[in-house]
Amino acid sequence: MRTAFYISDGTALTSETFGHAILSLFPVTFEHRTLPFIDEQEKALRAVEEINLAFAESGERPLIFHTFVDPAIKRIIVKSEGVSYDFLDHYVAPVQAELGVSAQPKTNRTHGISPEYNFRIDAVNYTLENDDGVTTKNYGEADIILIGASRTGKTPTCLYLALQYGIKAANYPITEDDMEHLQLSYDLKMHRHKLFGLTIDAERLQSIREARRAGSRYASIEQCQFEIAEIEALYRREAIPYLNSTYASVEEIAAKIMTIAKLRRHRY
Amino acid sequence: MRTAFYISDGTALTSETFGHAILSLFPVTFEHRTLPFIDEQEKALRAVEEINLAFAESGERPLIFHTFVDPAIKRIIVKSEGVSYDFLDHYVAPVQAELGVSAQPKTNRTHGISPEYNFRIDAVNYTLENDDGVTTKNYGEADIILIGASRTGKTPTCLYLALQYGIKAANYPITEDDMEHLQLSYDLKMHRHKLFGLTIDAERLQSIREARRAGSRYASIEQCQFEIAEIEALYRREAIPYLNSTYASVEEIAAKIMTIAKLRRHRY
Repeated sequence: MRTAFYISDGTALTSETFGHAILSLFPVTFEHRTLPFIDEQEKALRAVEEINLAFAESGERPLIFHTFVDPAIKRIIVKSEGVSYDFLDHYVAPVQAELGVSAQPKTNRTHGISPEYNFRIDAVNYTLENDDGVTTKNYGEADIILIGASRTGKTPTCLYLALQYGIKAANYPITEDDMEHLQLSYDLKMHRHKLFGLTIDAERLQSIREARRAGSRYASIEQCQFEIAEIEALYRREAIPYLNSTYASVEEIAAKIMTIAKLRRHRY
Repeated sequence: MRTAFYISDGTALTSETFGHAILSLFPVTFEHRTLPFIDEQEKALRAVEEINLAFAESGERPLIFHTFVDPAIKRIIVKSEGVSYDFLDHYVAPVQAELGVSAQPKTNRTHGISPEYNFRIDAVNYTLENDDGVTTKNYGEADIILIGASRTGKTPTCLYLALQYGIKAANYPITEDDMEHLQLSYDLKMHRHKLFGLTIDAERLQSIREARRAGSRYASIEQCQFEIAEIEALYRREAIPYLNSTYASVEEIAAKIMTIAKLRRHRY
């Protein structure tokens, strides 16, 4: 199997995103290896050994997606047996020409601590403290409040919104007790402009719940269908925007919520 | 102020990473706007209106970082008044030549649901259920167990490890009661090969704690210095690998832990 390397003097998150975006276009399976914090020549020489060994073992030249600030380190990597792709290569010069300002490379530029950083940690803390309806008293501070049946993806979505975008996201489960004559509680009504619903296909919900409480009424297909039908009816009745999470990743759900709810992000 | 647009037919996370990595090289302040899910010609036309309006208002051509699968949509965006950068442009052809396989573009390729997706959600659930030392009975399942004083960044780091890499990360606070003659509890000793310590500068810890419990002994500089000194001594005595989180973002801490602890990630 061919190996893909993602290498950088920082976290290598940018190299990974860059490489994945390209490789995902090809129906080829790779062995993936990330080498972050390659910020000294000695580390670069060890990385080259690893690249060359992967080549010797598979007979196929590894692909290397990299971003480096120090040209001396880049030169070492480029001399390996792998095929190098540096996405800065083609874009720094044209952007520099357009802006009329010189680039000032520095390490850890993309994923270091910026002034917006505390926003994200505050948002994560907010989300944890207002998860799963544990309290409703801080909803005044919320940027958004996700509601939905148990196990529709509210918590991971809230955490992603907090970590990626610095959004204070609370969530509130609509539980079985509320199901008959379903209506919004007073606390939710007070903040109805912040509400956003999640729903999911009943079959998918059933399989998620079954993995957690096998054989329970909670995990039965009848219960899942009933809850989903009642909750979707509530969303429509109350004109609450909502999304189906069945075929969407946390990243996709979060990006859609940002757009639909017109949320202002605290990180760029 | 000049505007930077990040546009895609998917989440636009790739366009954002691409654009940020380039723009962070320049000492220029931008207004950032992300337009995800531009997957129909009509939406593309509205995006062009927004780009042209930004140009009319600022007099500076907006920079547009985009990735599209559908060439018809890309053609619409490229005809706007902005300056377009498509990072796939320069890399798909050379990678295709190297692999000897044709690219098969599809939407939501980078951030959609893949077979590894459930790993990440399972990891998030694991992390939440094993946060803050609430239980130690599931440590057999952990990929890593972060330890450290209260407010050193354990929880956000664990959540990032789970969401980004699919790592099951538990965390356990070393609290004040344990401080004298500090030693590892039985449960931690049993899993000592999974332990990873976080530390932080006492001044930074003091300011974080002060924001939460102003004027408390917990937030005093003496208490913070004492805890950090005792805990770092414990790490050294027990040969537990550890990191200082003071000047590092969650992304940097997580990437360093992945490398130092040689963790096998469940997502690429």
